[in-house]
Amino acid sequence: MDVDIGTIGSPTHRVVDVHTHMYPPKYIELLESRSSIPLIRKFAGAKEPRLIILPAEAESLDKTAGSTETSSSHLPGRPVTTHYSSLAQKLHFMDTHGIDISVISLANPWLDFVAPEEAGEAAKAVNQEFASMCAEPSAVGRLFFFATLPLTAPPETLLAAVGHVRSLRHCRGVILGTSGLGKGLDDPALVPVFRALAANRLTVFLHPHYGLPSEVWGPRATEEYGHVLPLALGFPMETTIAVARMYLAGVFDQVPDLRLLLAHSGGTLPFLAGRIESCVVHDGHLVKEGKVGPGRRTVWQVLREQIYLDAVVYSEVGLKAAVDASGADRLMFGTDHPFFPPLGSDEQGEWESVTWNAEAVKKALGDGTDAARAVMGGNAVEILRLHEDS
Amino acid sequence: MDVDIGTIGSPTHRVVDVHTHMYPPKYIELLESRSSIPLIRKFAGAKEPRLIILPAEAESLDKTAGSTETSSSHLPGRPVTTHYSSLAQKLHFMDTHGIDISVISLANPWLDFVAPEEAGEAAKAVNQEFASMCAEPSAVGRLFFFATLPLTAPPETLLAAVGHVRSLRHCRGVILGTSGLGKGLDDPALVPVFRALAANRLTVFLHPHYGLPSEVWGPRATEEYGHVLPLALGFPMETTIAVARMYLAGVFDQVPDLRLLLAHSGGTLPFLAGRIESCVVHDGHLVKEGKVGPGRRTVWQVLREQIYLDAVVYSEVGLKAAVDASGADRLMFGTDHPFFPPLGSDEQGEWESVTWNAEAVKKALGDGTDAARAVMGGNAVEILRLHEDS
Repeated sequence: MDVDIGTIGSPTHRVVDVHTHMYPPKYIELLESRSSIPLIRKFAGAKEPRLIILPAEAESLDKTAGSTETSSSHLPGRPVTTHYSSLAQKLHFMDTHGIDISVISLANPWLDFVAPEEAGEAAKAVNQEFASMCAEPSAVGRLFFFATLPLTAPPETLLAAVGHVRSLRHCRGVILGTSGLGKGLDDPALVPVFRALAANRLTVFLHPHYGLPSEVWGPRATEEYGHVLPLALGFPMETTIAVARMYLAGVFDQVPDLRLLLAHSGGTLPFLAGRIESCVVHDGHLVKEGKVGPGRRTVWQVLREQIYLDAVVYSEVGLKAAVDASGADRLMFGTDHPFFPPLGSDEQGEWESVTWNAEAVKKALGDGTDAARAVMGGNAVEILRLHEDS
Repeated sequence: MDVDIGTIGSPTHRVVDVHTHMYPPKYIELLESRSSIPLIRKFAGAKEPRLIILPAEAESLDKTAGSTETSSSHLPGRPVTTHYSSLAQKLHFMDTHGIDISVISLANPWLDFVAPEEAGEAAKAVNQEFASMCAEPSAVGRLFFFATLPLTAPPETLLAAVGHVRSLRHCRGVILGTSGLGKGLDDPALVPVFRALAANRLTVFLHPHYGLPSEVWGPRATEEYGHVLPLALGFPMETTIAVARMYLAGVFDQVPDLRLLLAHSGGTLPFLAGRIESCVVHDGHLVKEGKVGPGRRTVWQVLREQIYLDAVVYSEVGLKAAVDASGADRLMFGTDHPFFPPLGSDEQGEWESVTWNAEAVKKALGDGTDAARAVMGGNAVEILRLHEDS
C-alpha cells in the first residue's frame, strides 16, 4: 500500500472513517421494488444491477428504457457491487486502507421517498440491520453506525424512532438529508426532533442528496460533463445552503446542544463563512428586525462550537480551510465508500479517492503530528464515544 | 481611520481596488426607463430612487406597487446614492480607505437585458462614459476600467465592440456575467469572443448576478432572511458553476491566453477544486470519452495559470485558501463598492466591508509583507498594466 494511513489495532492512533455508507439487504429490496428513482434495476448484459438515485440520472434512465445496449458506460447510475452491501467487503476495504473503525450510514436518499405509513417500520428494519452488522463477531469494536430516521412518518412515529435508535448499542447518531420533513432543515417543525437528538447525544450527520435544480448546469452538462457538476458542485452547495438556512432560522440558538457533522468538510461553509457574516451584518432587514446585534451567535462560533466537519475534501487547500474554520479538533476523516471507486480496477486494492483525503491531512497538518492523528481518528473516538461499546 | 490599508501616492506600494462599480448617467437613465427588473424606481417618501436588480427583489417590488409605505427598510432594492454615480464620491471613498487606483466596472446586470438592436450603441455609450471618467483631471492615473460588452447584439457587433474597448485608453478588460450569449460561458459560440479578448490582452472580470433558482432558499427566505442567501451563497455559487462549466467545456485549453479574474475569490472554487478534480478522474463517462488522461489540464493548473482571484472574501480563512489555490501573486484586493455600505451611518467614513477584506489580507499574509503588498495593489499594477497610461 502506497499510503500508510494507519496501523490497525494501535490503541492510541486509531484511524476512523466517519463517512462510509452501506446498503443493507432490506434497503436493496426496497429499491429493487421501485419503478421511479431512487431504484435499483437490472439491465440485460450488465453484470450487476444498477443503482439510480440522482435526478440527473433519471433522464438517461428514460433513454435506456427498452434498450438492448450492453456497454455499461452507457447505462445510468452505478453498479451495485458487493461494496454496497457486504460486511466482509467493508472490512476488507477497511483493512486495505488501515482503517480501524468505520461509522457506517445508509446512503442517500435514505427513506425520504417512503410513504408515511410505511416509514416507521422501514426505518426500524434498516436500523436493526445496521445494529446487527455492528454486532457481528467480525465487526464488534470496528463498526458503529449513524441511524436513519423515518422523516415522512407522523411526528409521534418520528420522535419514537429517536428513542429506538438511542437504544441501539452501536448507534452514535443519525444521518439526515437536507429536505427534513419536506420543507428544509430550517422548518420550525423539526426543532423538537433536533432537541430530542441533542438530548440523547446523537450527532446529526448532515449529508446532501438533492443537489441543485438541473437548469443551473446548462444545456451541455448531461451529455458532456458526466456527473461532475451535480456531484462536485451540487452536493457541497446543497449542504452549505441547508446549514446556512438553519443558521438564519436560529436553530443553533434554539438547540444549543445540537451537534452537526457536515459532509464534505461543510460543503463550502468554511470558505463562505466570512461572506455570510458580512452579508448578515450589512442586511438592512435583519438589522431592523433586531437579528443583528450584541449576543448574536456568529457563523464562526457555530463552526467552532456546534459543527463538526468530515475531512472528505480531496485537497490540502480545502482541508486547511476546514481546519482554520472549525479547528483540527473538530475534523474527522472519511472515505465516502462505496462511492468513487477506482476506475478500471477490480476495486479490491487501494482507492485513490481515499488516499487523496489521507494525503490532504498529512500535507495540511504534517505527517504523524498530533493534529493529523486527531483528524484521522482520535477526534471521532472522543466525539462519537467509540471507546464505549454501548 | 482605524485600518491604514495604504498610503496614497507611495510609488512602490500602491493600493488598487479591482472590484468596484459605477453607474454612469446613461446607464441610470436606461434603468429609470424600465418597468421590470433591472430598474430604478422612485418611491413616495423615500429620499433616493431605488435600484432593484435581483430576481428575489422582484417579488417585494410587486408587493409595494401602489403602496404608500414610507419606511425605506420595507422598500425593495437599495437606494441609489451618490456612491453609485458620482466620480467625486468614488474618489472620496478611495481617499478614505487609502486606495490609490480603482479599476471601475459597470455593475450587474450590465447590458444583459438590452434588446439586440440597441445593445451595440448602449455599450458604446456606457464605455465612452467610463473612458471619460477615467480621463477627468481629478481621476487620471487613479482610475482605469473594465468595459461592458453588448452580449445580446449580433456576433459582428459583439466582436466589433472588443475592438472598440481595446482602443479606449484606460480600459484594461471587460466585466462579464455568467449568462454569456444566453446559454452560459461554456457556449462554443463564445470562444471567438474569448479569443478576441485574449488577443487584445483584455482580462475578463467574471462577476455573478443571476444567483441560483429561488426555490433553493426555501419558503422562509424572502420574509425572514433578508438578502443573505442569494447574496452570500447564490452569487459565489453562480460564479463557481460558471467557471466549472468553462473548465469542463475545454475553454481554458482552447484559449490558452485567456485571463479570467473571478469575483469573490473565485466564489467557492479554491475550496472545491479538489472535489472537482476527484469527480473528474472518477467519472466513467469522461474517462471513456478520453477527457481524462495524460495532458489533461487540471483545475489546479487553470487556477495557477489562467485565473486571477479578487480578495473580496471577508475572512482570513477564505483569503488563505485563495492564496493556497492560486498563489499570492494572482490575488487582487477589491471592495465591491458601492455595495454593502455601513448601515446607520452617512456612508462618508470608513466602510466595514472594506476593512474586513483589508484585515483578511494582513492576517493571512502578514502586515507589510511583500505578499500582502502584492495582493493590496502590486499584482494589479503588473497584471492590468496600471503603470501604463494608455
